[in-house]
Amino acid sequence: MSLIVQKFGGSSVADAEGIKRVARRVVDTQAAGHRVVVVVSAMGDSTDELLDLAGQVSATSDAREMDMLLSAGERISMALLAMAIHGIGASAQSFTGSQAGMITDAIHGKARIIDVSPHRILTAIEKGDIAIVAGFQGMSRESNDITTLGRGGSDTTAVALAAALDADVCEIYTDVDGVYTADPRVVPSAQKIDTISSEEMLEMAASGAKILHLRCVEYARRFGVPLHVRSSFSHNEGTWVLPSPDDQIKIQEGEPLEQPIISGVAHDRSEAKVTVVGVPDIPGKAAEIFGIVAGANTNIDMIVQNVSTHGSGRTDISFTLPIVDGAEALAALGEAQDRVGFEAVEYNEKIGKLSLIGAGMRSNPGVSYRFFRALSDAGVNIDMISTSEIRISVVTGADLLDDAVRAVHAAFELDGDATATVYAGTGR
Amino acid sequence: MSLIVQKFGGSSVADAEGIKRVARRVVDTQAAGHRVVVVVSAMGDSTDELLDLAGQVSATSDAREMDMLLSAGERISMALLAMAIHGIGASAQSFTGSQAGMITDAIHGKARIIDVSPHRILTAIEKGDIAIVAGFQGMSRESNDITTLGRGGSDTTAVALAAALDADVCEIYTDVDGVYTADPRVVPSAQKIDTISSEEMLEMAASGAKILHLRCVEYARRFGVPLHVRSSFSHNEGTWVLPSPDDQIKIQEGEPLEQPIISGVAHDRSEAKVTVVGVPDIPGKAAEIFGIVAGANTNIDMIVQNVSTHGSGRTDISFTLPIVDGAEALAALGEAQDRVGFEAVEYNEKIGKLSLIGAGMRSNPGVSYRFFRALSDAGVNIDMISTSEIRISVVTGADLLDDAVRAVHAAFELDGDATATVYAGTGR
Repeated sequence: MSLIVQKFGGSSVADAEGIKRVARRVVDTQAAGHRVVVVVSAMGDSTDELLDLAGQVSATSDAREMDMLLSAGERISMALLAMAIHGIGASAQSFTGSQAGMITDAIHGKARIIDVSPHRILTAIEKGDIAIVAGFQGMSRESNDITTLGRGGSDTTAVALAAALDADVCEIYTDVDGVYTADPRVVPSAQKIDTISSEEMLEMAASGAKILHLRCVEYARRFGVPLHVRSSFSHNEGTWVLPSPDDQIKIQEGEPLEQPIISGVAHDRSEAKVTVVGVPDIPGKAAEIFGIVAGANTNIDMIVQNVSTHGSGRTDISFTLPIVDGAEALAALGEAQDRVGFEAVEYNEKIGKLSLIGAGMRSNPGVSYRFFRALSDAGVNIDMISTSEIRISVVTGADLLDDAVRAVHAAFELDGDATATVYAGTGR
Repeated sequence: MSLIVQKFGGSSVADAEGIKRVARRVVDTQAAGHRVVVVVSAMGDSTDELLDLAGQVSATSDAREMDMLLSAGERISMALLAMAIHGIGASAQSFTGSQAGMITDAIHGKARIIDVSPHRILTAIEKGDIAIVAGFQGMSRESNDITTLGRGGSDTTAVALAAALDADVCEIYTDVDGVYTADPRVVPSAQKIDTISSEEMLEMAASGAKILHLRCVEYARRFGVPLHVRSSFSHNEGTWVLPSPDDQIKIQEGEPLEQPIISGVAHDRSEAKVTVVGVPDIPGKAAEIFGIVAGANTNIDMIVQNVSTHGSGRTDISFTLPIVDGAEALAALGEAQDRVGFEAVEYNEKIGKLSLIGAGMRSNPGVSYRFFRALSDAGVNIDMISTSEIRISVVTGADLLDDAVRAVHAAFELDGDATATVYAGTGR
């Protein structure tokens, strides 16, 4: 008898109607002969309302109390979902993060799961109940306090539970049909992807695709949990994210299609470019600079070091980082300028990153030619380039990013005939 | 260094402003040199909103899930209060019922406290923090589930904590200045009572005074916890409810006033009168009838058995019970009519109960004369009478109840000059 973990985001349980719709869906899944564990987020924008109240009572914020406050949101939605399930004649029990055995470290606001011991969940589903678990929250064994997992927390809860329960699949319900070959807001002809390897999905998420959080995909890949990203508003098959190539092939079996060379095109507007100008071209200087930036806890993404310009003995080093980390990084660099001996720092937020992702490019040498050809035909200037085995990323001017995405998407024949439903956020 | 438990009801923490006002008050108390433990209810009508949502998602209700749902309310208010306290520079930690060691039985919706082990509360206040505890909720050791204590739950939480921590006083903050000699809505000249014995307060609560719940007063009396009922909107002294006569005297010391004969007049419109007509006047019939009613889980209050009417060999038995239990009791009686052999059942909800309470009446024989004199002067017909050592209660027609209350209040010279602030409910 298979075990399915289903995660529903805030937009799926935004009101009584949504909760009843989810209840019906969960009960149908059980009626189809599965054991079901459900993970829910807080209702709609209730989290924002709590944050707003917190802002009203105090200017300063306390991480422990904030977790106590926010964790109330899932308790409300899960209890209501359990009631709605009882209302249609099935049996269900809701469990808080700690009751579900989600043990985390004590870092409030962005706790990491260190252990999952879902004894009570198992007991509940063994006796035929539907188990409902509060997403996003856990308990620190060290402090016995309630913690929250931070962005994408409920997805992570679902995947962690699926791994601990050895579930057959973790279904992530959202408000779109699945993962698309590009953001349909930019490329209306983008197509839904039927299956993608978690390796590729990782690159997609890291490259700006927002439908799944990097952390949840990493977790699913590490523990070999198949993900099924689908819409809570339809019964269409969504996108399968499969941990190992073998699964990939398994799914492919019987299908005439060969695996596509390219999975999709992702883009990202959340990064800025920093150029450190006139760095003495002597060993160790680059390391010194990246040490300074890392010291400001910023994640550097792409890096380019220009060749030493006509024997000046100096060079320029460019890198990208999240815009939110920009100010801190600039301050750290400015403070270290004399010591390091560079001439100036340039900072530009008007950039965009475009990434082409596909496991197939490993074995298809023509990919990068076609990629750069498409960009130049579209008149897009390339500012930086970085590549992995299954990804090519470029930085362009922000104004040209959408054109670039459409050009590349078309060049790899990803365009479909249907127009995709427009993408929207998926709660936490 | 004294320890004070302060309980704030939903109306005191109804919004951000209220929470900040409570925070200021709590911090002032600590600044005055006390260790402070605060018990809070859910914000204003948030409980009703949750109940409304529950009604929307399901017609049936599940006690365990209802407790999970409602317990979220206090978690929100206590976390916000902790933040507000941090906001004004003091340190505080909030604790859920289970973190505070409120162990209950597993009867959801009206759980009873079976143990209080407030280790974490003690640790928090020892290190100088203000400890904030979620009222109304606990945890069942048996099922490890979240439970709620039912009506008056937060008051009970506060008193139970005060007892377990051996607090010097448990302050119950509400939206009136204290306990009054009568309901100011009926008797505008009612006066605030400065001190009252818990014995008398029990009679007041049992007789319809709504400011404190019977259960909380019982608990305070049993564990010798002094209560101070006062307003969260002023700094006036409220009403002290003192467990033992000695405390009573202690407080009286230095005061010229002798203890008043009468504490106050309470009234109750929530009961109905049942008369079982033509009961065979043979031993055991009364017991049989009360057995039937008790079987329908109703609490009988006053009982009157009329003398057997002119040798008919039959008698009438009248008793009062809560209106909410009326239907069930009538059904049980009707079903047993033939077996018991009575002639008919009369039911009347248009009654009111008036009670005069005062420990002083023990030693003052004149009280009942004065009481009945006042009622007859006011033209009030008396339907039933019951007395305890420190209480006289009568049942009258509902329409005359207010006049009766005013007449008795005046007859015992309880009227004051000032007009009392009007009484209102106090959250849970």
